[in-house]
Formats: sequence, structure tokens, C-alpha cells
Amino acid sequence: MEILGGPLYAVAGAGESHGPAITTIVFGCPPGFYLRAADIQRYLDRRRPGSNKHGTPRREDDTVAILSGLYQDNIERLTAGPALRLGEGEDAQTTTAYAEGYTTGEPIAAVVLSTAKKSADYAQFTGGQGEVRPGHTDLVKHYKSLGHVDVRGGGRSSYRSTISDVIGGSLARLLLAELFGVAIFSSIVQVGPLQAANRLADHLEALHQQHGGVIPPALLDELETQLLQAEIHTHDAAFARAAGQLIKQTRIDGDSLGAAVEVVAVNVPALAGDPLYQSLKLRIMGSLGGLNAVQGVEVGAGFAVAGRRGSENNDPIRSDGYQRNSHGGLIGGITTGAPLVCRVAFKPTSTIVKPQLSVRKNLEEIDFQLQKGRHDPCVGVRAGVTLESRLAIELLNAVLMHQAQRIDPAQFRLFGGQAGAA
Amino acid sequence: MEILGGPLYAVAGAGESHGPAITTIVFGCPPGFYLRAADIQRYLDRRRPGSNKHGTPRREDDTVAILSGLYQDNIERLTAGPALRLGEGEDAQTTTAYAEGYTTGEPIAAVVLSTAKKSADYAQFTGGQGEVRPGHTDLVKHYKSLGHVDVRGGGRSSYRSTISDVIGGSLARLLLAELFGVAIFSSIVQVGPLQAANRLADHLEALHQQHGGVIPPALLDELETQLLQAEIHTHDAAFARAAGQLIKQTRIDGDSLGAAVEVVAVNVPALAGDPLYQSLKLRIMGSLGGLNAVQGVEVGAGFAVAGRRGSENNDPIRSDGYQRNSHGGLIGGITTGAPLVCRVAFKPTSTIVKPQLSVRKNLEEIDFQLQKGRHDPCVGVRAGVTLESRLAIELLNAVLMHQAQRIDPAQFRLFGGQAGAA
Amino acid sequence: MEILGGPLYAVAGAGESHGPAITTIVFGCPPGFYLRAADIQRYLDRRRPGSNKHGTPRREDDTVAILSGLYQDNIERLTAGPALRLGEGEDAQTTTAYAEGYTTGEPIAAVVLSTAKKSADYAQFTGGQGEVRPGHTDLVKHYKSLGHVDVRGGGRSSYRSTISDVIGGSLARLLLAELFGVAIFSSIVQVGPLQAANRLADHLEALHQQHGGVIPPALLDELETQLLQAEIHTHDAAFARAAGQLIKQTRIDGDSLGAAVEVVAVNVPALAGDPLYQSLKLRIMGSLGGLNAVQGVEVGAGFAVAGRRGSENNDPIRSDGYQRNSHGGLIGGITTGAPLVCRVAFKPTSTIVKPQLSVRKNLEEIDFQLQKGRHDPCVGVRAGVTLESRLAIELLNAVLMHQAQRIDPAQFRLFGGQAGAA
Amino acid sequence: MEILGGPLYAVAGAGESHGPAITTIVFGCPPGFYLRAADIQRYLDRRRPGSNKHGTPRREDDTVAILSGLYQDNIERLTAGPALRLGEGEDAQTTTAYAEGYTTGEPIAAVVLSTAKKSADYAQFTGGQGEVRPGHTDLVKHYKSLGHVDVRGGGRSSYRSTISDVIGGSLARLLLAELFGVAIFSSIVQVGPLQAANRLADHLEALHQQHGGVIPPALLDELETQLLQAEIHTHDAAFARAAGQLIKQTRIDGDSLGAAVEVVAVNVPALAGDPLYQSLKLRIMGSLGGLNAVQGVEVGAGFAVAGRRGSENNDPIRSDGYQRNSHGGLIGGITTGAPLVCRVAFKPTSTIVKPQLSVRKNLEEIDFQLQKGRHDPCVGVRAGVTLESRLAIELLNAVLMHQAQRIDPAQFRLFGGQAGAA
Repeated sequence: MEILGGPLYAVAGAGESHGPAITTIVFGCPPGFYLRAADIQRYLDRRRPGSNKHGTPRREDDTVAILSGLYQDNIERLTAGPALRLGEGEDAQTTTAYAEGYTTGEPIAAVVLSTAKKSADYAQFTGGQGEVRPGHTDLVKHYKSLGHVDVRGGGRSSYRSTISDVIGGSLARLLLAELFGVAIFSSIVQVGPLQAANRLADHLEALHQQHGGVIPPALLDELETQLLQAEIHTHDAAFARAAGQLIKQTRIDGDSLGAAVEVVAVNVPALAGDPLYQSLKLRIMGSLGGLNAVQGVEVGAGFAVAGRRGSENNDPIRSDGYQRNSHGGLIGGITTGAPLVCRVAFKPTSTIVKPQLSVRKNLEEIDFQLQKGRHDPCVGVRAGVTLESRLAIELLNAVLMHQAQRIDPAQFRLFGGQAGAA
Repeated sequence: MEILGGPLYAVAGAGESHGPAITTIVFGCPPGFYLRAADIQRYLDRRRPGSNKHGTPRREDDTVAILSGLYQDNIERLTAGPALRLGEGEDAQTTTAYAEGYTTGEPIAAVVLSTAKKSADYAQFTGGQGEVRPGHTDLVKHYKSLGHVDVRGGGRSSYRSTISDVIGGSLARLLLAELFGVAIFSSIVQVGPLQAANRLADHLEALHQQHGGVIPPALLDELETQLLQAEIHTHDAAFARAAGQLIKQTRIDGDSLGAAVEVVAVNVPALAGDPLYQSLKLRIMGSLGGLNAVQGVEVGAGFAVAGRRGSENNDPIRSDGYQRNSHGGLIGGITTGAPLVCRVAFKPTSTIVKPQLSVRKNLEEIDFQLQKGRHDPCVGVRAGVTLESRLAIELLNAVLMHQAQRIDPAQFRLFGGQAGAA
Repeated sequence: MEILGGPLYAVAGAGESHGPAITTIVFGCPPGFYLRAADIQRYLDRRRPGSNKHGTPRREDDTVAILSGLYQDNIERLTAGPALRLGEGEDAQTTTAYAEGYTTGEPIAAVVLSTAKKSADYAQFTGGQGEVRPGHTDLVKHYKSLGHVDVRGGGRSSYRSTISDVIGGSLARLLLAELFGVAIFSSIVQVGPLQAANRLADHLEALHQQHGGVIPPALLDELETQLLQAEIHTHDAAFARAAGQLIKQTRIDGDSLGAAVEVVAVNVPALAGDPLYQSLKLRIMGSLGGLNAVQGVEVGAGFAVAGRRGSENNDPIRSDGYQRNSHGGLIGGITTGAPLVCRVAFKPTSTIVKPQLSVRKNLEEIDFQLQKGRHDPCVGVRAGVTLESRLAIELLNAVLMHQAQRIDPAQFRLFGGQAGAA
Repeated sequence: MEILGGPLYAVAGAGESHGPAITTIVFGCPPGFYLRAADIQRYLDRRRPGSNKHGTPRREDDTVAILSGLYQDNIERLTAGPALRLGEGEDAQTTTAYAEGYTTGEPIAAVVLSTAKKSADYAQFTGGQGEVRPGHTDLVKHYKSLGHVDVRGGGRSSYRSTISDVIGGSLARLLLAELFGVAIFSSIVQVGPLQAANRLADHLEALHQQHGGVIPPALLDELETQLLQAEIHTHDAAFARAAGQLIKQTRIDGDSLGAAVEVVAVNVPALAGDPLYQSLKLRIMGSLGGLNAVQGVEVGAGFAVAGRRGSENNDPIRSDGYQRNSHGGLIGGITTGAPLVCRVAFKPTSTIVKPQLSVRKNLEEIDFQLQKGRHDPCVGVRAGVTLESRLAIELLNAVLMHQAQRIDPAQFRLFGGQAGAA
């Protein structure tokens, strides 16, 4: 099952890059939260190619249409979303998507239509004689699907599938913000050979210590604004400029670049996450490390810990909390309340213009030369919102898992004199 | 998670009766099966109110729009489904749904829009002073959702949610038919006090014995035609007429009727299903017994076995198979190849015109009188296709589970000299 | 996975009838409940053959050894359970099982050794020429396992596997009793042609109404005592005597008998259970209906509803609760606080002495005659505790699922000034 | 649920470091594989402290007792495992564990008793005034468990819990070896500041290329012998000596060391693994990255890809396979048949003798000084077998998932003329 998170908060996704739509169902959203489609749209807009200066030049509108799971008695306001029409002429069926309402606790479905399709670009890869793009899923999926894989734009394995991640993650972060004041950020820290000097994690850990574990909303809003205005989505302005230049040049060279991205959550509720086999650490490592194009993932101090001694790595504890954050907010897979800190490494975009050695799907050898198509030269550049989303999904699921173990009989009453009322 | 079946073949559903749409995602459909939207539509049409003479007078078109998971290189044929448009005017996004193609092994999403909405009918039930319909979920869901339940048409608990069951079940039965010749039927055997004299299970068990375990397709097609043409969906023509009359009269009386329905699968692959805690018997009992309005479920001889001795209940075995089918096609939760036979009991439709004792949501007592709204007087009458669908979903999942245990290294080769090639 | 319940409260089981042990792991037990091995032992003793006058004459001790998941600082009291020794002589390893302690929230493992083995009894069924017992899993499991099925005593499909159900169910009912005062009972209502006149459900529904929804513990204890002292485990004393006689005679005849059993939970917390695809109704229908030898399951009024009109079936509601309980404590798959009422039908024990038509595993036809072995003539007679256990497992899981949706930020604090503290 | 892998091949674990036993249940092992307890014991012996020269000086025997899931008609050989006795004197129950037999497809349970307990060592950490060990789970688990956490030896969060990983992994690798010739190795590549010059992945990738994708068993056996005889488990002999010295000295200093470990599988079946949300990459990143003390995980070239261009990172493809392995054996989360290559970073063992700043569980500040207890100074040194095990579990599950999608009707026949026989 194509499901992120779960078993409590879970996001199901479906849809190929150039198929009719990306479909998403979000399960386990507790009832009673007021939600606006616009709140989700904001994060989808960050995900969209063209939303930054260095992504792919394709334009995708990616308007979210919410189809279930919200309610308010003011039906007019509830259904003030965009009109949705199926079929044409007299037989056409029309409805309107939800604009805003309270979560009901039932599944929230959403579709994002895919309209910017140039399928002719993909003739090179079609059929049993189709060419295999190095680094892509073309070959394995051709054989796995018995020849029936959608090659247009990477099919389901396209980054377009992350629309579901972002929808599910947007809902999760809105709830986490309302319940605990959680805020989740990402920052690009490496683009090819260039590395950022300023780390977002350092900045947020300092704020966390300084504000006694609860960073005020105003500071978080300010940080968000700054990140959104940067040349690329990073906390380091000088690095942003240099990286932007390098990306531009690399696109011209017909090549691509790897990247590394930090993800940090602050004002994190403590005690969330199970230990061991379904620990929040395991879940986050999987969810972030499993994202397309990611080849490595770290929590806290990450690979640096391999070179350390225990006396330098153990974080000292005082009555107001951990004094450092080598542990990255998780001990034993359980949140400590310190910032959740992760980093992932993205490989360079596989699609490049430079010639490469490859095969046809029938394994006949070829000199591969991309004929058409436009792509991000650095996939890491717009991946931040997806990483934030996946972190939010796992964190909300962990919160629900912990809450399940704290039973309050008062939550199980219907009529006055009923059992559990005692 | 609102998921039927699984973990291999699984159907996720979302959507309320009067919300914008019912959304469905089907997971685990193996690659390489040619599928037409029309094949699904045919079963959706059977599910639809108004598709028979005794359902609710509402008209719902229920056109399925497939949004992912199919492919063929002939893109024009692939995307020959109905146009889907989001938004209006210049900013509108348009796409076309899939009409037919090969399954790719990736999730198949579908939406069915909801257009026939008379939400004003539900003012009586809205808000904290809203009235509670006896037999409905109004009260429990009001408190469970902290007051944010969609009361229109039963919200998510409406029979309209079974669109997802039918979509997932249609795909499953098409695959099972192609792989094994499986056919799945249902027959109404009781409507209120009236009982059918002829049982579909008896008929099909006789055919199964007579044809050495493989009933020829022509006979199955003939049976299907006969069932579709009956006054109500039953194998017993005389009963159909009497039950039709009773339903008409009951509607006039402002009352409703319970019903019992048989579901039978034939040409069933043997050895499917795990034993014990996830046995196919457990799964079927849950899936059929868990359907809205169902209060009882039986496999094989059902409750009758309580009154029997072992010497009459054990089915004799000969070299060509079981000679009777008290076991209903399952022993130890595993298919024997004999027809899968189930029966379920539906309560009378809860919505009736006759006055009843009830409360407001704040528990204030009232004499309840339905003000508006039209409903099936006998929900069992059109439930057959849903039961067939749920059976198909569980059977296909069980088939995949069994196949997983029979590893053929030849299925794991990519390049010629590779591991597993030995 | 052989798992009952879940995803939150879940019971994993392993072990064959004549294997070394039945192993059980219980997941999701919340922390902080004081638990004694003796509390579990009490229910295991009810499950054991020979625990009543009409079960199989075999004696099994079934001492539970708890191996994990409990703790108290008083290690001596914690580890006052029976000694467990692996190996012999000098190299033997010894430890002691847990006797009592607080649940820690981590998995609780338990083993019950199997010692009373007469494997020679099963020579008749061994190997590719082995004989197939009609009604047993011998044939399907032989082919499913590629010939490697444990035929001794029914292998894993034996009722001995229900030790895991009872261990997991005992923990669940202890927690439900402590949290809400829940009590769960069962009563045999049919043995072959004999039916009980007094129904336990009627009795408990009357008490529920009479005591305003909270039945006092003293009355429940009294009922339990009465049931334990009856000739067979039923609320109807006259029926108990007649059924006892019939079972004795049937054993002499070399035959067996079917049975029907009621299961009822009272003082049930309201609002537990999800709607629709994972509803508590679906889960209970599956879990009870999926038990070995069960062919039918009902909730509330069960199959009787098929014959009713809505005006007689809808349960009237007043400010203090539902005035009747046709719905069996579940509406829309959610608990209403009314007693949870279920009934299941067991087929007659498949193993009988009377001759039958059967085959060898190679499908060669034989006249089957049981050579050795002793069995319950009426499996329903001691199934009650297993049904109660399965109901408890599903109910506790549903309680945890509901609680997960009611997030209380106070449960997520570690250091004073931390996030969520606001 | 404490479950590794799944939904098809899954390993459930339970048990605390100083509790009576570690209990394991393995689900989804296909039938028909001949298995010996000794095959598992061999890997458990590698996991055991004291199994290498630089682990903890504690001695644990860790004899595995298999309690279910195997069978052969030769019962004597089946049950030739160690005797297991519960209780003492006359009432003692005794049985013998399984020694060897065919897998039946049913759950395989195993227990390993814990006998080497010095619980008095843990008085320092007991109770509400207990001291918190920096880097340990003491604090979070104290609050999460409402004070009822087993502090002895790290409780459930101890490395002793990985006995379950190794049992489940041993079974998985035995099956993968028999089916495909898969072999899985690990090699320590960093200990504190010291780094290995020779990488196991390089060595195995060279063999893979050289032998056309199928490395001969003799070479694999030779490698295994070499790794087992090394001073520490690494492919680099010079590094092994230096690292061994450093570990010794660090133990004397009362400090600990981080480490990095490679894990590599060769002769890997292609096409295993689902894409996207449950991809094998996601699963491996989670399973390896989620292991206790791990702070980072990489697949293929790992974090190095962030610094690369696409033209250097894309692996060229020829008709006989991928010519490099930057992708680490997984593209799109699906196996390519190239070696599966992973690396993880372990933090230094948290328990050290050097003084540290900490708190009591009530948050009172203390200067923490360990009073008693012996521990591995470098947890990474014996973690290899656990990493190999987790990789094997995920790989076997992915193999089963892929096989499930390739339905062969011949696997579903019981009687000759049956459905599916056509």
C-alpha cells in the first residue's frame, strides 16, 4: 500500500506525473480542527516547479480540490472551493470542492489535476525498444510491471507524487502548530561542492535554549519569511547566492547537481514516539531517507558521531532540559522536546543533457542522448517542503500513538449515568 | 485507516453522501491486466439507487473517473475517459480520465462526483439542537466528532460510501475471472417475513458438482442475465414478485423492511487464505458482517450447524472433491475450491416516516417525525453488488497472500547472468 | 501475520497443539496497570480441556509464564513466578517468570508449555498417504504447506492456539474493568437441538436499564459465580442439565454436537470504535466469526432483523439512553454504551468415531475410521472464554483508537518550560 | 506493535535486558525450507557480548529454543532441541525445543533465556529519585511509562532486544541463500577517528562485476571466514589492529567510541521492492537507521552524492548490468541485482565512567558518576550481525511482495478438475 505514516495518521497517494491527477487520502486527522484549503495550497505552491528561481521551467498550477472530511453547518462557506465538472455538455456532473470547515475525523480526500502535459517528449522511452535513462526507474519498472509502466515524466516515480506528501504534511503541521506550537523548517546546506556556513539547526537550537524550550511565534514567522525570500531556500544568504549561480551554470552545461538539506522541527511535544521497532527515529529515517533521490539521512549529529567519544557526544542534562542536541531531539526513538534535527543527501537529478552509456529496455546497448524534456538541475532545491511534510506526518502519528496510551474515561461518555462515568 | 482488504489488495475510501465526491484508491492490483472503466461502471450502475424498481427514487449518475494506475502506449485510447475540469473560466484546469489500459501495479485512483444534493432536507438534524434519527449514527457520531459530523444524507456512514467497495471489488472480480474463471453472485433470500424457496447456493453447488468443479462460463452468464432481469435481485422469481409487492406497500405505509442476502463465488481457486487469526473466514465474516446495516453473517451452513451432529455436518470427500458444502468453501479459513457461500441479514432501513421516540443531540427528549427525505424502504435490495465486491476484495487479497509464499526465482531476473539465474 | 486486534492493542500467537509451547506476545498494553499472572491463569483455567464436566478427558496444565513487559522495583516480587530452565545439567540456563508488576507499555510475552502429548495417536494422518479427517484442515493444509503440516492434534489449527487469545483477552478485560468497570460474559444457548429458554443478553440488558447504565460490581460477581458453577457454562440451569445429558450420550454414540453461544459485555464505554471499514462491528464480526469451527455470527438482534419492519427494529431513545438493544451496543460500528451483544454458531466437533467417506492426502478414496484420540464432543462448550477474550481485545483496541483522537497537550511534557506547556 | 519488516515477512520481539527471556515470533516464512536451530545459533553467537575481543566482558549463553513452526514426520529428530522445564518438583512441566525440521508456513516462535543478571548494579537508577544516565532512555521512558520502566540493563531498549532481529534475520538469510544464493556481510569502517582504507563494498562490487553478477559461493565462504577471524569484524586487517588497540585504551580511559559499519548483500534478486512510499529503500533506511545508537544511514554512495554532478553520479548501463554502483543496488526503491550497499553511523556507547552533568528523574540536578556496570566501549563493534539481519528481513519481505504480484494459477489447485485448472 502506498501509504506514508500510520497506523493512526496516514497518507495514501496515487497518480502518475502525466496522468489525469494526483489523488490523496488523509486518514486519522482528529475531529474539531478548522481547516482551510488555502492553508494547504500555500505549501503546495512551495512544492511546485517554478515556485523558485532554480527549478524546472514547467508551470503547474496544482490547485488542491478537497473532496471530503470537512464540515460546518454553513454549507455555503464549506463548499466555496473551486467547481469540479466531470463530462461535458448536458450529461456533465458538477460539484464544488470544500473551501474550509472543521475536520470530522473522517478521511480527507483531495485531488490535484495534472494539465501541463507534453507527452510527445517521452516517445524516446516508450515500448519494448524504449531507451533507458541512466539513474531513472525505467529499466526496473519496465520489468517489474511486465512492460506496462507509464514512462511519461517518470510516471508514478516522478516528484509530482510528492503532492500527496505535502497535502498530508500540511494538515499534520497545521494540527501540530495549533496543539503545541510546533514549527517545521528546512534549509539547503549543500549544492554540489558548495556548503553553507550557517546551519539552520544551530540557529534554532540556540533559540530553543534561549527561550526555555518554547520559541515565540513571532521569531518563527520571521524565520519563515526570510527562508521564503531567499534566492534558494536556505538560512545562509551568501551560500544562497553562490549556489544559485552554480545551478544556473550547471543547467547551461547540461548537467545536474546533488544537494543536502536540513529539516528541523521546534517546540516539539515530548514523549511522542514508540521505542525500538516502530520508534520515531526509525520512522523518520525511513520516511526522509526513502524519498526519491535521497541516498543518506541523519538525525542529530549524524555521521559525525562515528568519530566521537562518549564524553563529548553525550548531551548534558539540567533541570530545564538537554544542554546540547547531539541526539537531535530523539532518545530511544522518543522525543525529548529538543528540536528534531535531520539532514538528507540528494543525488544530482538523473536527467541530464550530457551523453551517457545506457541500454534499450531489451538490453541492447546504446549511447544515450536525451532528446527532449526540461528538468530541475538540482532536485534538492525544492525538496524541502516535502521533507518538512514527511517529518510532520510521522510526528503527528507519534503524537496520536502516545495519546492512545493515556486513557481518560471522561472521553467515553454519551448519556449521563453511563459506564465510565464513575 | 478506512481500508477494506489488505495488506496486499486493499481499497481505501473517502467521502460523504452529500460531499463533493467519493474518492477511492485501490492498492496492490498486479500489473498486466487490461482494464476498462466501463467494466467498473457496469457494477457501479447496479449499486446506484434507482437501478432497480424498489430502491430510493433519487437519481445518481455515479460516473467513475479513473485517475491513475493504468497505461498503454496508445495515449489517446488510454485517456478517452470523460473530461474533468477544476475551476472556471480562464484559470480552469482540465484533463481527461482514463478509459482503458493495462494495470501497472501502481495505485488506481477513482472519483465519483456527487451532484444530486438536497441538503436543505437535512436542516432537521443540524447543530447541537439537531434531532437524532433512531437507528442512525447521528448521536454517536455527533459526540465522537465533537459536534462536527456531516449530517447530510448520513454523511460518511451513508450507503454512498460503498461506491469505493464496488470500485475495488469490480477490479478484483475482473482479475479473479481472468485468472481462474471466478464468478460471484448474490441473491436476496428474505424480505421481511417473506422467504425465497429457491436458494442460489443450492443451484450453484449443484452446478459445481455436475461440472466437476469448473462451471462453464455460458451457464454463469445466463445466471447473471436472469438475476439482472428479476424484479428484485434474486434467484427465485415467485419470491421476487411477492417481495416487490411488499416493498411497494411498505413504502406507502411509511415503514421499512429487513432482508437477507446470499453471496456465492464459484470456480474458486483452492488454497487461498491464511489459517487462524487472518484467515479468509475471519476476513469475510468481518467484511460482510461489518457492512452498514448488517446484523448477522454466515458461512456455509451457518447457524444451522448449531443444531446438527458431526455425522451429518461433516462433508464427505471423494477424489474429485467435497461431496457437499456445509463448510461453505472454507476449511480452516482456507479455500477448498468448493463454492464460497455466505449469507447476511440486513436490518430494516432506519429512516422511516412513522413517528418514533428520540432525543435531540443535547439529549432533550422528542417525538421524532421525519420531515423530508427519500430513502430505500429495504436497504438489502441493492446491497448485493456491495457484498459481492467485498467478497472479491478479500478473495483476491487471499490469492496474493498465498502466491507470495510460492517463490519462483525466475520472476526476479533483470540482466541475463544475474543472481537467481542459477 | 497471526495477529488478533490491532493496530494498537494486538495479540500475536504461535504454536501448534503438540509442539513445545504456545507463545504469545501482547502489544499496546498501556503503562501503569498492576497485573498478576494469577489473573491470567484464572481465564486460562477456564479455557483448559477438563475444566468442565463435558470437555475432552485430556488434562493440560497450561501454566502461564510471563516473560516480559512487567516491572516493579521490588524485583523479588516481580520475579516470583515459576522457574524456567533450558537445557540440562551444568549447562542449563535458569530464570524465573514474572509473577506480578506494573505494565510498562512494552510487549508482554508469555509461554505455555505443552506437555500432555500422545503423538502416536496421529500416525494415521502422517505422510503423503496419511488419511484426511473430514471437517479438518488436513487436506488444505497438506497442500498449502507443500506437505509439511504438523498433523499432531490439529497442529496450529487446534483449539490449543486459543491460549494466545485468552492471554491477550485476559489482559484486555482486566484493563477495561479497571478503567470502566466493563464485564464480559458468555452463555451457551444451544447444544444440538436443545435451546436455552433464558438468554443472558436479556438478563444483562434488563440490569443495564434498571441500574441506569452502570451495573453494580456485586451483581456481576454473582453472575460470574453462577455461570462458573453451572453444569455447562450457561445462564439457563434447566438447559444446562439437559444439554449435559445430551453431550454425555453423544460422546457414547461416537458423534458430536453443534452449539450456539452468546457473548455480552456490559458497562461498556461509549464512542469507541471507528465507523465503516474498520468499525468495531466489522472487527467483532470478523474476530468472533473467524474463530475455529464458527459458521455464523450475529450482533444485537442478528438474523431476526431480516424479518422485521423498521418501526419495530429501531430502538427508541430517551435522555438516559437507548430503551431497547436491537442494535446490540453498536450503531455505525461505534459503541453506544448499551451492552455489546453477540452470538456465534459452532459446528459439531469434526472428529467423530462414526465412519465417514474420505480420502488419503494423495486423494485416494477411503472409508475413514478414527483409530485413536479423544476429543470434545461439543467444541462450543468451552469456547466461551475465547469469545469473551476476542471481544475484549477488539474493545480495548477500539478504546485506544478513540483516545488517540483526543489529544491532551499535558500528556506531552517532560521539562517544565517545554513546548505544549503553554 | 514491535514488529520488524512485514506485512509479509515480519519479526515480532519482546523482552527486556534483565527480564526472564527475549521472545521472538517470526511470521511469513514460506513452507518447505529445512531449518536447523544450529543455523540460527551461529548468528546469535556472533551477536553475543564476549563473542569478540572488544565487547563487554559479560557472558551470555543465548541458546535459542525454537517453540513452533517446524515439522517433520521424524518427531524424534524434530524435537531433539534442549529440554525446557517450567516449575519445579512434581508439578514441573517439561518439553523439548525443536532442533530441525521443515518450515510449515506458520509462525516460528523462539525464546532465549536471560540468566546473567546482576540487577543490584542498577540500584543507582531505580525509583523516582533514580539518576538519569546521559544518552540513555532513562528519562523519556520514565515519564512515558508513568514511572514503570525497567531500568535494569537498559530494559527493553538494551541491545539484548536485537536477539529477535538476529533470529528473524537468520531465517531470512537462510531462505535468501537457498533461493538466490544471497550472502550478506558487514564490515566496520570507522572507530572513532580511525577509518578503514579498504571497503568491503568496493571488494564485493568488484567481485560482482568480475563474475557477471553471480559471485561463486566459495569466494563468499572465504570472505566470511576472514571476517570472523579478524580482530574486529572488518575487511581491513590493518585497521582492525589499530581499532582494537584504540578500543582497549578507551575502555581503560572510562570512555567510549563511535563507529561506522558497512552492510552489503550480494547475489541479490532483481525487481524486489515496491516503489515510493513502501519502497525497499525507505524500508532499509528506516530499519538500519532506526537501530539503537544509529544516527545516520546511507545507501550506495550516500552523502557523497550531494557533492556530485549527474554526469559523474549516474551509473552507466551495459547489457550485462550496471557498470558502477553509486545507486547501491536500489533504483526507485527496487533492487537492480547489483550489490545492496548501506552504511550506518553509531554514536559512542552512552554508558561511560567519566563524570557527566545529569539530573535525577525528578529533574533535580546532579553530577553523574556511574557506580557499577560493564559495557561495550564501542557498540558498533558487534552491531554488524544485527544490521545484516535487518537487511535480510527487509529483503525477504520485498521478495515476497514482488512474488505476490506474479500469480501462477497452478499454485491454487487441490482436486484435479478444479477451477484454475483450465
